[in-house]
Amino acid sequence: MTSSSSVPDFVAAARTFHALFAGFSLCGATEAGGITRLCASPADGEARALFAGAAREAGAELLVDAVGNQFALFRLAEGPGAPLVMMGSHLDSQPRAGRFDGTYGVAAALGIGADLRRAAGGGMTFGADFCAVNWTGEEGARFRPSLLGSGTYAGRHRAEEALACRDDAGVTLREALGGIGWLGTDAAPPPPACYLELHVEQGTVLEEVGATIGLVTRNWGAAKIEVCFVGEQAHTGPTPMPRRRDALLAAADLICSVRAIADRWPGRVHSSVGRILVEPNSANVVPARVTLSVELRSGDDALLTNAGLMAEAAIAAAADRAGVSASVTGRTMRPIRFMPEHVCDLVHACAEDQSLPALRMDTVAGHDAISLLGLCPTGIVFVPSIDGIAHNEAELTRESDLEAGLAVGLCAAWRLCRAGGSPERALHAALPTEASGAAT
Amino acid sequence: MTSSSSVPDFVAAARTFHALFAGFSLCGATEAGGITRLCASPADGEARALFAGAAREAGAELLVDAVGNQFALFRLAEGPGAPLVMMGSHLDSQPRAGRFDGTYGVAAALGIGADLRRAAGGGMTFGADFCAVNWTGEEGARFRPSLLGSGTYAGRHRAEEALACRDDAGVTLREALGGIGWLGTDAAPPPPACYLELHVEQGTVLEEVGATIGLVTRNWGAAKIEVCFVGEQAHTGPTPMPRRRDALLAAADLICSVRAIADRWPGRVHSSVGRILVEPNSANVVPARVTLSVELRSGDDALLTNAGLMAEAAIAAAADRAGVSASVTGRTMRPIRFMPEHVCDLVHACAEDQSLPALRMDTVAGHDAISLLGLCPTGIVFVPSIDGIAHNEAELTRESDLEAGLAVGLCAAWRLCRAGGSPERALHAALPTEASGAAT
Repeated sequence: MTSSSSVPDFVAAARTFHALFAGFSLCGATEAGGITRLCASPADGEARALFAGAAREAGAELLVDAVGNQFALFRLAEGPGAPLVMMGSHLDSQPRAGRFDGTYGVAAALGIGADLRRAAGGGMTFGADFCAVNWTGEEGARFRPSLLGSGTYAGRHRAEEALACRDDAGVTLREALGGIGWLGTDAAPPPPACYLELHVEQGTVLEEVGATIGLVTRNWGAAKIEVCFVGEQAHTGPTPMPRRRDALLAAADLICSVRAIADRWPGRVHSSVGRILVEPNSANVVPARVTLSVELRSGDDALLTNAGLMAEAAIAAAADRAGVSASVTGRTMRPIRFMPEHVCDLVHACAEDQSLPALRMDTVAGHDAISLLGLCPTGIVFVPSIDGIAHNEAELTRESDLEAGLAVGLCAAWRLCRAGGSPERALHAALPTEASGAAT
Repeated sequence: MTSSSSVPDFVAAARTFHALFAGFSLCGATEAGGITRLCASPADGEARALFAGAAREAGAELLVDAVGNQFALFRLAEGPGAPLVMMGSHLDSQPRAGRFDGTYGVAAALGIGADLRRAAGGGMTFGADFCAVNWTGEEGARFRPSLLGSGTYAGRHRAEEALACRDDAGVTLREALGGIGWLGTDAAPPPPACYLELHVEQGTVLEEVGATIGLVTRNWGAAKIEVCFVGEQAHTGPTPMPRRRDALLAAADLICSVRAIADRWPGRVHSSVGRILVEPNSANVVPARVTLSVELRSGDDALLTNAGLMAEAAIAAAADRAGVSASVTGRTMRPIRFMPEHVCDLVHACAEDQSLPALRMDTVAGHDAISLLGLCPTGIVFVPSIDGIAHNEAELTRESDLEAGLAVGLCAAWRLCRAGGSPERALHAALPTEASGAAT
């Protein structure tokens, strides 16, 4: 390695990160400073092209699997078959969303990979290879369920099932990915030895306690229920009220009930209905068919089960009152998950190295890392979101916080790659100094 | 006139009517036997072409005004400046609607016009000309407000205002009509001496009492309120419930309240919300903006006013509870209107001529005839709708009832045209026998 570079070279990693983040921010940019980059849209295609170019430029091998997950494989260890350390997140977004959600973790992973590869090229020895990943369709905005790409990688869905998912216009994920040229044929890399994800918090906990680094120890459980009410199309004028079978009235009733479930356990259950499709959706027509997505989240399994039962009862009651039929067309239950302690310990040690105040905390939102929990030791590292604003064009994280997270991620990745991917060993391995560790 | 034809020639009028009705049923036909023929859509363009062809074939002059209203002008009287008798309705439909709503009245008017023109050609003398009309955008499904074409003809809207109306995709009526080639430049005909509209009932009153002909004496009032709730886009996971400003929750609350208003006065107030637009409408995002259309109808002015005040209060209360802002972006008040007695008397006399049981009744739904009430004596003639099914592909009226209405309309049109367009004089004028009335 050259004598001018420090080890790890945070300045170089940050330069790569900032350039990439700025580039990604242009893909699907909105006038209000956010992005609309729905999964497998042309804007997503642009971001994917940027990912691929950056990976190749940094000396990585690019693999694209059957569901479009992009893997930038940085060979660091000698010979084939070395363990893999993986970092990443997703480049897809909600409509009119912020620039940070997902993109932060992907740009950071590429910056970190580039630094590791430079060091390896300079003669530094590593016991693991590194992979930066962009998971397809994390948001569940265009294609449901969410965590689609990482869930497929982890074996929760078969690739064929994932590719058959349709958006509201009836377009399949296969067609959409094919349309932007990112339907891959590569085998995905084998399960990593450790997976880490940098992400913006999307809440206010770090801000409230004045911490810079969040160590996620637990993921709230989520129950997602797709409901379809079917009534009868009729004229809103002469049709007598008792004869109406109004699917939108049932939906409205349910939306109010779903909110009441959260209000029953303040701070312990979150609930929402964010999506509703109404047919025929005309001012003079009694709605015949309404589909809506009910979401419940809690950090307490018993509460989540109770809330779910209440929601199912509310669906039946709403249908009954409006005289329509109800069917549950989809049910996804994501149980409460705990993150491995030793990954948290490693990230905590890295934060202490940088003198950054860290906090062990929950994540309420799901992240791709949750998909990988059954596969390998997995960690999520949060940096603060200003005012907790998320899924909103005004989403913002201070540059100093972005860099703090990057520094912690860089440190953890170095230690993991030096220690052959094992978080336990990485915890006890010091970082190399400039002189030590190099082969020459 | 030829000796072979009766006067009026019901068989010929019915033949023209049935052929046209079958043709219109193909324009925008759905698999389930209904039609989707939104205003100024390609399917509407096809139906308009059929109207124009039938008009020309029957010897009418076709006029298309600035908002696309089609007038088939049958010259019957000698010289220019004769009074005009007008009949018609609309060819646009709701999404997945029935084939009869509007189309029945247009096809019948063309069949009647063709018969009158044949008779005039055969030497029968008339004191008025006849006009069959297809009004643009009655339904309010694609472009709001409803009764757009007839309302413009009657001077309620300026043509420029009507043409500037936009559908949910942002397309103006001007662009849509231009796109199908039906943006006209003709001056509309002057106000008629009398306007009659044949329509399917869309309710069950005629069926319940066993009458075939409904004589509309009164139109229920309607209050239509366009409401927009604006909250804040946020993540449905981590965003604390008390901080959420959920525009869909406010809308759901309002939809339930609007139903409760009708439930308070059973049978006397009808209410509905048939249309709702949600942004961004994604399962993981707290909805930021919801627009919805509230409708209230009543046959009692005081009740309608009360119901309207309750709806306005419900809008404010819903916004307040959900922590969002509310604005009313449109308010349309259509007062209760009474139809002129002498037009009802004329139609009643025609029904008696045919030995058809007739009933004086209300219309709850608005029809183009209501637009013309301030302009000239106006009547609406109903025929039964099986089971009252309306705005639904299963809408159906028996062929015998369609022909009964046609026979009454034909009789009324003949008497009106013979009597110079005056319903009072037409009431006392007998129909000509085959021998009398002809010039030769």
